[in-house]
Amino acid sequence: MKQFMDEDFLLSTPTARTLYHEFAEKMPIIDYHCHLVPKEIAENKPFRNITHLFLGGDHYKWRFMASMGVDDKFIRGDGDEYEKFLCYARCISMAIGNPLYHWTHLELKRVFGISEPLTEKTAPMIWEKCNALLATPDFLPRRLIERFDVRVVCTTDDPVDTLEYHEMLAKDESFKVKVLPTFRPDKAVKIDLDGFKEYIQKLSAVSGIKIETVDDVVKALRNRAEFFATHGCRISDHALDTVPYTENSFEKAQAALIKALNGEKPDACEVDAYRTYLMIGLGKIYHDLDWAQQYHMNAQRNNNGPIYRKYGADVGFDSISDEMISAKLNKLLNAQEENGCLPRTILYTLNPAANYILGTAIGNFQTQGGIAGKMQFGSAWWFCDQKDGMYEHMRTLAALGALSAFVGMLTDSRSFVSYPRHEYFRRIMCDMIGQWVENGEYPCDMEALKKIVQGICFENAEKYFRF
Amino acid sequence: MKQFMDEDFLLSTPTARTLYHEFAEKMPIIDYHCHLVPKEIAENKPFRNITHLFLGGDHYKWRFMASMGVDDKFIRGDGDEYEKFLCYARCISMAIGNPLYHWTHLELKRVFGISEPLTEKTAPMIWEKCNALLATPDFLPRRLIERFDVRVVCTTDDPVDTLEYHEMLAKDESFKVKVLPTFRPDKAVKIDLDGFKEYIQKLSAVSGIKIETVDDVVKALRNRAEFFATHGCRISDHALDTVPYTENSFEKAQAALIKALNGEKPDACEVDAYRTYLMIGLGKIYHDLDWAQQYHMNAQRNNNGPIYRKYGADVGFDSISDEMISAKLNKLLNAQEENGCLPRTILYTLNPAANYILGTAIGNFQTQGGIAGKMQFGSAWWFCDQKDGMYEHMRTLAALGALSAFVGMLTDSRSFVSYPRHEYFRRIMCDMIGQWVENGEYPCDMEALKKIVQGICFENAEKYFRF
Amino acid sequence: MKQFMDEDFLLSTPTARTLYHEFAEKMPIIDYHCHLVPKEIAENKPFRNITHLFLGGDHYKWRFMASMGVDDKFIRGDGDEYEKFLCYARCISMAIGNPLYHWTHLELKRVFGISEPLTEKTAPMIWEKCNALLATPDFLPRRLIERFDVRVVCTTDDPVDTLEYHEMLAKDESFKVKVLPTFRPDKAVKIDLDGFKEYIQKLSAVSGIKIETVDDVVKALRNRAEFFATHGCRISDHALDTVPYTENSFEKAQAALIKALNGEKPDACEVDAYRTYLMIGLGKIYHDLDWAQQYHMNAQRNNNGPIYRKYGADVGFDSISDEMISAKLNKLLNAQEENGCLPRTILYTLNPAANYILGTAIGNFQTQGGIAGKMQFGSAWWFCDQKDGMYEHMRTLAALGALSAFVGMLTDSRSFVSYPRHEYFRRIMCDMIGQWVENGEYPCDMEALKKIVQGICFENAEKYFRF
Repeated sequence: MKQFMDEDFLLSTPTARTLYHEFAEKMPIIDYHCHLVPKEIAENKPFRNITHLFLGGDHYKWRFMASMGVDDKFIRGDGDEYEKFLCYARCISMAIGNPLYHWTHLELKRVFGISEPLTEKTAPMIWEKCNALLATPDFLPRRLIERFDVRVVCTTDDPVDTLEYHEMLAKDESFKVKVLPTFRPDKAVKIDLDGFKEYIQKLSAVSGIKIETVDDVVKALRNRAEFFATHGCRISDHALDTVPYTENSFEKAQAALIKALNGEKPDACEVDAYRTYLMIGLGKIYHDLDWAQQYHMNAQRNNNGPIYRKYGADVGFDSISDEMISAKLNKLLNAQEENGCLPRTILYTLNPAANYILGTAIGNFQTQGGIAGKMQFGSAWWFCDQKDGMYEHMRTLAALGALSAFVGMLTDSRSFVSYPRHEYFRRIMCDMIGQWVENGEYPCDMEALKKIVQGICFENAEKYFRF
Repeated sequence: MKQFMDEDFLLSTPTARTLYHEFAEKMPIIDYHCHLVPKEIAENKPFRNITHLFLGGDHYKWRFMASMGVDDKFIRGDGDEYEKFLCYARCISMAIGNPLYHWTHLELKRVFGISEPLTEKTAPMIWEKCNALLATPDFLPRRLIERFDVRVVCTTDDPVDTLEYHEMLAKDESFKVKVLPTFRPDKAVKIDLDGFKEYIQKLSAVSGIKIETVDDVVKALRNRAEFFATHGCRISDHALDTVPYTENSFEKAQAALIKALNGEKPDACEVDAYRTYLMIGLGKIYHDLDWAQQYHMNAQRNNNGPIYRKYGADVGFDSISDEMISAKLNKLLNAQEENGCLPRTILYTLNPAANYILGTAIGNFQTQGGIAGKMQFGSAWWFCDQKDGMYEHMRTLAALGALSAFVGMLTDSRSFVSYPRHEYFRRIMCDMIGQWVENGEYPCDMEALKKIVQGICFENAEKYFRF
Repeated sequence: MKQFMDEDFLLSTPTARTLYHEFAEKMPIIDYHCHLVPKEIAENKPFRNITHLFLGGDHYKWRFMASMGVDDKFIRGDGDEYEKFLCYARCISMAIGNPLYHWTHLELKRVFGISEPLTEKTAPMIWEKCNALLATPDFLPRRLIERFDVRVVCTTDDPVDTLEYHEMLAKDESFKVKVLPTFRPDKAVKIDLDGFKEYIQKLSAVSGIKIETVDDVVKALRNRAEFFATHGCRISDHALDTVPYTENSFEKAQAALIKALNGEKPDACEVDAYRTYLMIGLGKIYHDLDWAQQYHMNAQRNNNGPIYRKYGADVGFDSISDEMISAKLNKLLNAQEENGCLPRTILYTLNPAANYILGTAIGNFQTQGGIAGKMQFGSAWWFCDQKDGMYEHMRTLAALGALSAFVGMLTDSRSFVSYPRHEYFRRIMCDMIGQWVENGEYPCDMEALKKIVQGICFENAEKYFRF
């Protein structure tokens, strides 16, 4: 029996252990997609206790507690913070097979040096120990980032954002980590959501471009993208909860915009046309700026009405959509390819049943000589970001395309202690590759293996995003 | 090489063997969903031979024989019963990798004490031996149930049923096993099927409620559900071969009912609205009675026209549907949540490609403090109820939610000798958990593991269904 | 650690090794579905170098090179052939986890006796060695086929084809391998594609049947099928990129044909009806001729517009479709069953998420006593034709139906050196079965295992296709 989560955790063969400890473990981190709040990095305020750090904004943990029957008072409510931690300890001790079990214990180990499993019994000791450490300078937000040798953090930002905190961080010579914005124009694309008209007014104001046509919307977004580029932005991001595609979308898109600006509801066809038109126009902007675009697909959000009205979005009530995507997605990408303006693109799906769809869709647009893996099948995402999900993602990517060109892991997290997920990913990746080598499926050529492993850990991303 | 199906069958590690033999093996059984016929339990008539017991009503076995090219005469037809058994022996000896291979041999071993593989050669000996035993009192239907330490059997019953056999069994002090009805109002919901009008007349008669509106249908069903509750019913069941959802369904639902009662065909939208309205109304009934509701999804039934006309339903000609379910299912559940009337719910899918859909959908409605696993992702069902299917189901459930709150296995069977499927499930569950422990992914904390294993075997179901 | 791709490659247990080396390895090959060009077999011209042989028409290899960022000049373009081989060597050395890695090295080993991994360093030596061998008679196309003990090759042919090369080959006594045509009437079925009208004129001319109605189309196709039958054809093939089904399709089908012959575009419903009508009519033809029909589903072709206009189809820009198939497919098959005219049928999907759909759909039509596995879930296809894909396909088939009746592997290839894929398949199949035996899931009954293994390698196909 292996020891519980020891140094060789998840490394089941000698080759896996060599690959991890010699090549992967010490590579720096590029966290090219996360949801850290730039203001919090800039202000660098201490965490008041482990509940604040662990449970303050982590909807993964909230969701699990709810599944175990914990009352909302001790999840998102006003329950006592120590009580909340005890609840979490009780729940997590039963979380066998769940990634939270590993994340939590990696966080305790790597951040706080605690190896004991978190249970109701150990909770009081862990509470004391963590809180004492959190009061020291080595546990301030910025130090947490630095301690994991993170080189680049890409936050997620709205085009109308002033990027003042990014600017502040860029000027601050005491903090060497690059904190770069990511351009996420969802509010300009989702014409069917409440608040769209007001958003367009804001976009118009901040860009100085009067918006009367869909081309004006694109022009204003280009203006903002160029502003983002001057702050080091290299990446955009889109939540394509459904994938739009309408042939010859201009006229219907324009009709949709007119209606929306007049306070009317465009119909479903017009919405789809508008979204199509915007996505194609945005693709051209990203192409011109030499950015990478990210499409996040198959999420179905805000499923619980009462909760949504009480707490809003992103509090743990989203799930996976089984929407069919292959037909529209390929057409949307081809429309960009036809214009000669398809930028580097990363496709993510929340539905593992679509892994083979994306794993082969990327191959349809690998036409630009000189960029290995121009089209990427992005890392296992959200609900899939766990051991089985990562294995499945990487085996699929390898079987259908070029694993060695993969840009690798990201945290996608709101938390300052999510970096051990890179360790988790690297262990799984090394274990998978190690098994192939041990099984005679790839030669034990350590030079080639080092190149592949370090590429996926760090170097591919560095090159791909031009950091 | 491990011995063929010995005491450590499917238990690949020392921890798995400990978990199974010390914790799981001796736990009693709650069979909370099956298709045993209450009359047959009540009458307790002997089986005339092993063909009668094994092949009398088991469409899994029939289907496999047909796949191997056996003539229907020796499957569902009037062929000699000994010949039928020989045919089955010939087929099963080639059924490598099929769950029937394991079920058949577990049934022979646990029920008849026979360890030889069933082949054409051993068939005559096994025929003799089984038939001799079947003539003894220890092999009567009730004894077969008792010998597996079954505490509760939930049959599947129509709301218009008189439940006379359940009543008879409840009064019979010589038989301690609780045999409880399950409320399955499919015929009241499936307005598009032949015989709906007649069914509504029957429902009206038996409930004493005049049915002119959709609310009358719901009222009549409530009347019957209350009657079922007095007979110990705690569970309902729905075959949602397609998932309905129509916003504001009342008026269209009413239009559908009027048409159907007038002998006209409601259109597809009206059918969907009617089904939606009924499902929401029924959810409220179950909520008020503190029942659990079961949704069985992604079955596509009666695909072979000639066979259906000859033999009717449930004879082995159903398959899996790839219908998209995430959008409608979440809305249907949310409609119940919005009313504050979402009961405990178990979601099953026949399509393993939808495992991640259900594994995350349940998380959208875990809002009721005090019930661990209020929303359940139900056990691998029917075609998925085999080794790979169970592993995949439980790994998915664990990765996405709380495996330790899982209510576990059921037989879903028409046969009196299906209880070894609980053994099969427990071995797989212990093997999976044992691998995690051996692999250092969960601590070797036997107290916690005992709680988890015995919970999934028995205790969670006992609590969840309030037996 | 196992040696890289040695004699026990992929055989992880002693039983697997016994099954492969004693039963599987020496069985002859029936390649019942491929895309070899009959003219090339007939002409038997030598390959000018390894680039010509390896990269001349293999879109799998092209696609991988593009994913690695190789310029099209060195893929499909006019780059120097030695440079192209170097590019391929560089790419393949990084192709960890991709089936091309194994295929390439099996091809080098079995065809050329080369065991060194192909890398940039070994490429010059391998180039020399292969080219020298390719200049010898033992490496002519026909010898490549013979050296793998191939007994039957089924090419893929258009109904209007003259089959002159098949005739030539049949008469040539120096070449014992049966080269038989396969009837693939896609152009007559895909009424919505350009060139349909001209195709119908050609079909009319070659069959001598005037075509004015859909029944005339079917009649002309029957005429050609009978001609194919006289040349040994036993199999048809259909690319069902989408699955058609329209109830009572005749009138709309006829309307579609009239429009198409008048140079108008039939609407989507008419196209579906026409395709339905044709598929049912063709099924009857195949049934009458005692053929097997193949349906290939879930491909989404020609996704890259610029590439398609430059190079046409089948050059590496296809991917997987997530179209829902269960409802229409079962109805289409049932329509044939209702007529009593459902022929033996092999169903393939490119989408592994549909494996369970097909694995259960076949069970709906296993009604013809005397044919084991009349309905087949076909071998893992194209993107799925790799280690994980094959395991998943065979485990699914076994769990849901009768693996022992499976007709096994095919190459589906345009290349003369793809036969090692049969070896690859057989190793995986023996490994899977070996694991079951070693794990106590099936008895170590070597007689039964031999029958199962040799059946899947060769004998089942021989019987099923009546060769």
